[in-house]
Amino acid sequence: MQCSERKKRNRRLLLHSNGLTFCALLTILLVFPQRGVGQHTSLEDTIRAIMDEQVAAWNRGDIEGYMHGYWESDSTVFTSGGTQTKGYSEVLSRYKQHYDTRKKMGELSFRELVIQLLSPTVAVATGIWQLSRDSDKPWGRFTLIFEKKPEGWRITHDHTSSSER
Amino acid sequence: MQCSERKKRNRRLLLHSNGLTFCALLTILLVFPQRGVGQHTSLEDTIRAIMDEQVAAWNRGDIEGYMHGYWESDSTVFTSGGTQTKGYSEVLSRYKQHYDTRKKMGELSFRELVIQLLSPTVAVATGIWQLSRDSDKPWGRFTLIFEKKPEGWRITHDHTSSSER
Repeated sequence: MQCSERKKRNRRLLLHSNGLTFCALLTILLVFPQRGVGQHTSLEDTIRAIMDEQVAAWNRGDIEGYMHGYWESDSTVFTSGGTQTKGYSEVLSRYKQHYDTRKKMGELSFRELVIQLLSPTVAVATGIWQLSRDSDKPWGRFTLIFEKKPEGWRITHDHTSSSER
Repeated sequence: MQCSERKKRNRRLLLHSNGLTFCALLTILLVFPQRGVGQHTSLEDTIRAIMDEQVAAWNRGDIEGYMHGYWESDSTVFTSGGTQTKGYSEVLSRYKQHYDTRKKMGELSFRELVIQLLSPTVAVATGIWQLSRDSDKPWGRFTLIFEKKPEGWRITHDHTSSSER
């Protein structure tokens, strides 16, 4: 009888302990829902939002607004074909020169966007750009290096190439 | 007299202490000569050495050797024009297909190489590539993302464009 009593108590203790573990796990899951995944998605979302804003600015003919995605620094680099443009204002001037009419700017869209965190302060975004214009639909690929600056995530290196050779 | 003795002792102690400080500083300078600058130069040297080895391998017709600069991973990305090639073996195949003869490979050289550390594990290298061949001398620009992997610094993203449009 004594032994049976002990067994019963042990079973109760086990059930109680399992109940506590279950409650603790449930609390963790409710308080921190997929924390790791959430953080990752959040960075992707941040960068995606910056690029969405760039697209929206471009499509209302606002090159200055489009440029907000870039780091406002003399070190910012834009590379395309055989040309390298260094410095935020130089990149802005280049865009203004190449796209001096609303017609030339056309409608910008990004496709196949892949955002990858390389370190806590560096990310890379690759994808396809396309301009839909009355006369043509030029497109190509880009590799953007984003860096976390005091003002937020900004493009510090942009290498853009055209599908046309 | 007692006071003068104390002053003398204090002066001796001060001289001794200054001497010790000087010795300590000298030791630090001798043991760690410009440590910060040294570390930075060392990373540049490491990446420059990898790229020099790539050039040497290319110029002896050894595409596998050239590929040692890249991260041996399915995630390695090579972008050029409108084409993105993903995966180390796919990039190797692309090179072998594009440069199937020694004549097509020509003599590779890099110019205007700038290497910049973005975080303790990420660096970017930009520059100009050129092939000197009997028939032509094609050239363009590259942006390479190097990442510190267990096997060393390796190219994980290569965006190369041609000056020809």
